[in-house]
Amino acid sequence: MFAPADLTEDGFLGGRLRIAQPKSGYRSAMDAVFLAAACDAHAGQSVLELGCGAGVASLCLGARVAGLVQAGLEVQPRYAALARANAQANTQVLEVFEGDLAQMPADLRARSFDHVIANPPYFIAQSGTPANDREREYALREATPLAHWLDAGLRRLRPEGVMTLIQQADRLADILEGLKGRAGAITVLPIAPRVGRPARRVIVQARKGARAPLVLLAPLIVHGATHHTQDAEDLSDVAREILRDGQKLLISR
Amino acid sequence: MFAPADLTEDGFLGGRLRIAQPKSGYRSAMDAVFLAAACDAHAGQSVLELGCGAGVASLCLGARVAGLVQAGLEVQPRYAALARANAQANTQVLEVFEGDLAQMPADLRARSFDHVIANPPYFIAQSGTPANDREREYALREATPLAHWLDAGLRRLRPEGVMTLIQQADRLADILEGLKGRAGAITVLPIAPRVGRPARRVIVQARKGARAPLVLLAPLIVHGATHHTQDAEDLSDVAREILRDGQKLLISR
Repeated sequence: MFAPADLTEDGFLGGRLRIAQPKSGYRSAMDAVFLAAACDAHAGQSVLELGCGAGVASLCLGARVAGLVQAGLEVQPRYAALARANAQANTQVLEVFEGDLAQMPADLRARSFDHVIANPPYFIAQSGTPANDREREYALREATPLAHWLDAGLRRLRPEGVMTLIQQADRLADILEGLKGRAGAITVLPIAPRVGRPARRVIVQARKGARAPLVLLAPLIVHGATHHTQDAEDLSDVAREILRDGQKLLISR
Repeated sequence: MFAPADLTEDGFLGGRLRIAQPKSGYRSAMDAVFLAAACDAHAGQSVLELGCGAGVASLCLGARVAGLVQAGLEVQPRYAALARANAQANTQVLEVFEGDLAQMPADLRARSFDHVIANPPYFIAQSGTPANDREREYALREATPLAHWLDAGLRRLRPEGVMTLIQQADRLADILEGLKGRAGAITVLPIAPRVGRPARRVIVQARKGARAPLVLLAPLIVHGATHHTQDAEDLSDVAREILRDGQKLLISR
């Protein structure tokens, strides 16, 4: 377990969620909240988060939609324990499985889900400077290839189930390749820091077994001003509604 | 040849180009102009257009950049002849080859180009309602698979040469698949009719043999108003600069 002194408690969704995260380890930020906001799950449906870390995305989703059956898979024992503690602290039910998505735990392999969500590591293994913290490194770097994340997610979906991913925009080709022939009705939502700028992230949503064509949506713009003008946050209206008010991200094809 | 009575003469680039096009056949519109505007060719460089039709994209490019060595490949004899006539009428040099890109003419197979541009047919063969006109049908429908267009273009590029395509946005995955492992520094420019709307088209640009990551740019917005408000054109500033003033489309990674 993380020692209490190694944790901070951070507010998400305007403070509705209180999440303990390691001070120097992997810390979720707005990407996990956008991911949760993009998942169109309804009461009674089941959701699996691959690589749930401290549970931020799953708990944001649970805060917005009551009555979900939620599970998370996390390979790092201390993060899995933290996700359990965070669920409890926020009076949510999140069943956290400790295990590797490339060797799916038998309990999960026996189940299928209406939704799978994931925020896979952004950096290709061996690229860039290693993080100092081995667990943080694991969460940030692609020890498991992105293709395996997609494959594991698709396998856990029921037919017509929906996968929602958030990733660096430059991995778009790899994501689409992993979905090819297995999921359709792909919707790509670019997320750009400001109007006119390239996307830093993409949310990709796809329906297992569907054949409908890909839709490339208008970008979600995170910041309101065209340039960085102040140190205070200058979130766009839509980003504020998602990040502070806990609203759903409307992905309409 | 088309009979003169079957042709119209249309202005492009604010009237700088006069292009004869068949009244009832395949008629180029703004996509060909955007394609030309996105090609960053410089004086002295060579450009090949695959499926040049009546020559609109190549002649728009030649109107913006003097001193190019331009070639076009067109499978339909009457369109190839029209492209030659249009080049002559606009006092441009465009060497038009009649032939099928899936069986590249030997004269072209012996050459490589700094740039390849293409506006491949948008509709998958056998889908939708057939066009009445057999030649128009050929230009609109994908008789030759998109993968063959990409392959033919990549083969005709010199190392580090640049391919620029315009296509329906829903073919993005197919385009990226065709480039995989053969071209990098991929830049995706969504083209959307209005702010906030999904992209209808994408321009995809890639450098042969490069490895730089994909960049997903902010969309180019064609119309200025958020809704269709009038019958007159309501082009956005950037679209007007390209379509009427013949300016270059800035694709900065």
